Amino acid sequence: MTKLIFDCDPGVDDAIALFLAFASPELELLAITTTAGNVSASLTARNAAIIRQIAGREDVPIHAGADRPLFRAAVEAGAFHGESGLGPLELFTPAKGVEAGHAAQAIVDIVMAHAPGEVTLAVTGPCTNLALAMQLEPTLAARLGPVVVMGGARREGGNITASAEFNIFADPHAAQVVFASGARCVVMGLDVTHQVRADPARTAAIAAIDRPAAKASTVLLEFSNALERDIVGGTGAPIHDPCVIAYLLAPQLFTLRRCDLQVETSSPLTLGHTAVEFRLPDPAAARIEWATGADADGVFTLLTERLAR
Amino acid sequence: MTKLIFDCDPGVDDAIALFLAFASPELELLAITTTAGNVSASLTARNAAIIRQIAGREDVPIHAGADRPLFRAAVEAGAFHGESGLGPLELFTPAKGVEAGHAAQAIVDIVMAHAPGEVTLAVTGPCTNLALAMQLEPTLAARLGPVVVMGGARREGGNITASAEFNIFADPHAAQVVFASGARCVVMGLDVTHQVRADPARTAAIAAIDRPAAKASTVLLEFSNALERDIVGGTGAPIHDPCVIAYLLAPQLFTLRRCDLQVETSSPLTLGHTAVEFRLPDPAAARIEWATGADADGVFTLLTERLAR
Amino acid sequence: MTKLIFDCDPGVDDAIALFLAFASPELELLAITTTAGNVSASLTARNAAIIRQIAGREDVPIHAGADRPLFRAAVEAGAFHGESGLGPLELFTPAKGVEAGHAAQAIVDIVMAHAPGEVTLAVTGPCTNLALAMQLEPTLAARLGPVVVMGGARREGGNITASAEFNIFADPHAAQVVFASGARCVVMGLDVTHQVRADPARTAAIAAIDRPAAKASTVLLEFSNALERDIVGGTGAPIHDPCVIAYLLAPQLFTLRRCDLQVETSSPLTLGHTAVEFRLPDPAAARIEWATGADADGVFTLLTERLAR
Amino acid sequence: MTKLIFDCDPGVDDAIALFLAFASPELELLAITTTAGNVSASLTARNAAIIRQIAGREDVPIHAGADRPLFRAAVEAGAFHGESGLGPLELFTPAKGVEAGHAAQAIVDIVMAHAPGEVTLAVTGPCTNLALAMQLEPTLAARLGPVVVMGGARREGGNITASAEFNIFADPHAAQVVFASGARCVVMGLDVTHQVRADPARTAAIAAIDRPAAKASTVLLEFSNALERDIVGGTGAPIHDPCVIAYLLAPQLFTLRRCDLQVETSSPLTLGHTAVEFRLPDPAAARIEWATGADADGVFTLLTERLAR
Ligand SMILES: [Ca+2]
Ligand SMILES: [Ca+2]
Ligand SMILES: [Ca+2]
Ligand SMILES: [Ca+2]
Repeated sequence: MTKLIFDCDPGVDDAIALFLAFASPELELLAITTTAGNVSASLTARNAAIIRQIAGREDVPIHAGADRPLFRAAVEAGAFHGESGLGPLELFTPAKGVEAGHAAQAIVDIVMAHAPGEVTLAVTGPCTNLALAMQLEPTLAARLGPVVVMGGARREGGNITASAEFNIFADPHAAQVVFASGARCVVMGLDVTHQVRADPARTAAIAAIDRPAAKASTVLLEFSNALERDIVGGTGAPIHDPCVIAYLLAPQLFTLRRCDLQVETSSPLTLGHTAVEFRLPDPAAARIEWATGADADGVFTLLTERLAR
Repeated sequence: MTKLIFDCDPGVDDAIALFLAFASPELELLAITTTAGNVSASLTARNAAIIRQIAGREDVPIHAGADRPLFRAAVEAGAFHGESGLGPLELFTPAKGVEAGHAAQAIVDIVMAHAPGEVTLAVTGPCTNLALAMQLEPTLAARLGPVVVMGGARREGGNITASAEFNIFADPHAAQVVFASGARCVVMGLDVTHQVRADPARTAAIAAIDRPAAKASTVLLEFSNALERDIVGGTGAPIHDPCVIAYLLAPQLFTLRRCDLQVETSSPLTLGHTAVEFRLPDPAAARIEWATGADADGVFTLLTERLAR
Repeated sequence: MTKLIFDCDPGVDDAIALFLAFASPELELLAITTTAGNVSASLTARNAAIIRQIAGREDVPIHAGADRPLFRAAVEAGAFHGESGLGPLELFTPAKGVEAGHAAQAIVDIVMAHAPGEVTLAVTGPCTNLALAMQLEPTLAARLGPVVVMGGARREGGNITASAEFNIFADPHAAQVVFASGARCVVMGLDVTHQVRADPARTAAIAAIDRPAAKASTVLLEFSNALERDIVGGTGAPIHDPCVIAYLLAPQLFTLRRCDLQVETSSPLTLGHTAVEFRLPDPAAARIEWATGADADGVFTLLTERLAR
Repeated sequence: MTKLIFDCDPGVDDAIALFLAFASPELELLAITTTAGNVSASLTARNAAIIRQIAGREDVPIHAGADRPLFRAAVEAGAFHGESGLGPLELFTPAKGVEAGHAAQAIVDIVMAHAPGEVTLAVTGPCTNLALAMQLEPTLAARLGPVVVMGGARREGGNITASAEFNIFADPHAAQVVFASGARCVVMGLDVTHQVRADPARTAAIAAIDRPAAKASTVLLEFSNALERDIVGGTGAPIHDPCVIAYLLAPQLFTLRRCDLQVETSSPLTLGHTAVEFRLPDPAAARIEWATGADADGVFTLLTERLAR
């Protein structure tokens, strides 16, 4: 069983990733930590609690974290997650709130209380909390298990700007801190998440499930698919964040390639661009793997099966 | 007939592009202009004269130009063109040398002596000469016909760095000057040139031609193919620069997409990166087109046919 | 009485500033917080404890903090503080160590436990701890009393590079976070600290005092004066950090001017440069004051009098 | 006699510098070259011709040059030179116009036609023309005599932004090209020009001269003094550009210090800042001298005496 801290900014696709994680017995969820990102910090914390309650997993603690990027000015994700961050999902005040203590401190406390390499991190929002945690505890990076991050783009170009993907653009300094920390990172950028799309058949399979998480997921997928159709002009929205959890459950569904990865932090034009270099002097020493391919059917089969539990 | 100034830095693939241009009656070659790039300015000028003599086209004047980038420090292309710039091609002292006058001034004089829109520019090296010409003559950009540039990368990532292609990296400021000038530009980046490769059958077809330009081209292609195999690990080197001339001869072989294009000029990490944005507020106002696809068989058929003339 | 948190990186001149603060009844020292800077984080924390013990002020808690800058790679201050950070001062293992808890969290806890505006911050090292504290607690900046920072340069040019002073250069991102936070800041840059020099008469006056803090200060001043003579070529080292405490004790000794202040965080050439702008559209709205003048005799009279207590 | 090319952007203080040069038999004026700067390129060329005619020096050829910076977007000097560039001076259509040929090419042709080191350059506007000339002729820098530039700031801070002076800010890339070229440069920045002010007595001495150039200079000085009083809040406008010519006539009036000088070309905050470093590993190898002091009375005595001729 993988001991996991799930750091997120729900967010429509974070919510589906959370449902997938909550429904997966292979994952021992030590904590959910939230950050500003798709929407403000107070909304992402609340949204995580709402998703947790729908999933009936109030046993998992939530720690709210960074309300702004490490250095740059805050950016907003715009229309893609709706004003609430959860699209048209009917909201409610969660019965259980968040724990005391900043998410960054919670990450430190949990990781340091476990054996080296024992705690895995899933990051599906800006990397602010993890970068802060690495500041608060200098030995954290060396003690972490794998860090699986949704962020960046190489072949696909950017989504928020021509050359940058939203999560990395939203806190490029934090991302660079994480990628340069020496922690082993697996990075799910747009190159792979754009391969995993909620096409009509896949969406219909989830819509057919009569379970609360599946019903909520259907609302979220249909919201994203409508935006994809109306704004981007495509069929089937990519489900970025669930790829992170799917990778933890079934790594064989993804193709990875060792790389060096530097984040642009200074130029306004390319801010948040991920410079992914595959030509390595010593590939065996690489600490970062870049996802280049996904078995999209496999990912959706896994998601559908879990949402039916 | 297209009146053409061909600005280049020969360079193995520039040489093949020159042979293609020399052999094509659709092009009226007003001048060859050369710049530092793959090798130094004195070598690229000499190499252009050698290729011109092999092609028997001493009627076309050559003007030597910039010996360094507009602003940044000079970079070298390394092993890919050999020490001479023409790989293992047997060199000789050309019977005819270059004309007096800087290439940038020659571009100004020729373009201003023709009607607006009448002179097309092919640029297969760093954009230094054209940027200087635009400085010397403020109305040049408005008087130019189309500018077809080999440079940049989007999907393919960089070749000289993770995020930048050599020609743009070698003079990012000049490229930005040209792309922002208002001139109509067609840009052949790695996204398309990587689709046009000298695979064994295509190379063999050229090798079978008993003509001086074809024999020289075969030497150059086999040199590039060996490097591609030994350094990059692929089969069939991409023939970047000939795509520019092929586009002028047969635009239907290429797929273009309107875009905005900004060049990174400040960050060391991403210097020379081309930020290609397809999401345009007013696509009809776009002055730049980015090549996304090529009919590689069509390009090689054209090249082979012309080298056989 | 001013309730004060003193954030420092001792450091020769931090040590003298600490002695001045410890000896001043106008200051209620709530905590000493330490950061990496002149020397490593573990050394600055130890050095603070040594200075505290010499001063007999073990009642003041010390919290160790950031071991690296917020974002940039760590820099070292070189010879100016010696290998230990306290020049040739005879070291010992302090009887009392540091408290548990990161300095940034300690700053948050203390400031939030007091009334708005009640806690003053003195910062004589890189601003990392305070920037982290502002991250951990978004309302911190609004709750802080004045922040008095030693850092930056305008007229004097830089000391670590042509255009940057060491403290700001060592963590430019943290400094920018603090200066842009909305907290009221008084900035003691080289323009003013270079006016306050330990000339022979002033040094002799302190050397004549038979008290432990004065004796230690004399060792430190003579060390700095020798470096100033041998490396910089001047007479009497500037005592940068004591200016911060002197300002808190006797603001009339300093001339301030309202300004806007931005820190350079992206360019390698000017990294850490403080862009100080006095031409303000609305001077009354300025939150930052830049020290332009000091009564150096007044500062040394104050220091000497306190070291004699 | 000093053979001089005077590259300028008149501009009120350029005009006075031109009068000083025209009236000085120690200078053989080979050419006036003009650039966009204080006002547009067409206005600066016209203004130079107007000033030349007032001085009765139509023997000196004028070449118009760059109409925009080497790379950055054009900036304007605002109110300080009036709409015409010559404040309230009564304008007329000059009887003699400018020569054919771009200023950059003229600089190349003149310098290369003289012996190495024989031609001195005075630059009182953005460095665009000289940087272009260095591009057109790679050996130019080595052949030049001294280059005396008005530009930059160290102690005085910037005038156009907090950290940059106008001439360098207006074309930082060109300035960096010139300063890094290896040419011997003397740089008159705000540190020295702010010492040379047209106070009432000095202005009155010029106003008392009944000669055309003195009368025009008086109009220009009174215009600048009024702006200095109303906008900056000081008495006596600094006469920046005449310092360059005064230095060529009487170098003993100025104190210089060897330095390294790099220009900021990438950061929006500090663009055009001159990083002046006096701490040199090998002072004897320095090619750049920075003016730190001026005998302002001496400069005005010289100016007044020449305007009276
Ligand atoms: Ca997310
Ligand atoms: Ca080429
Ligand atoms: Ca300090
Ligand atoms: Ca001027």
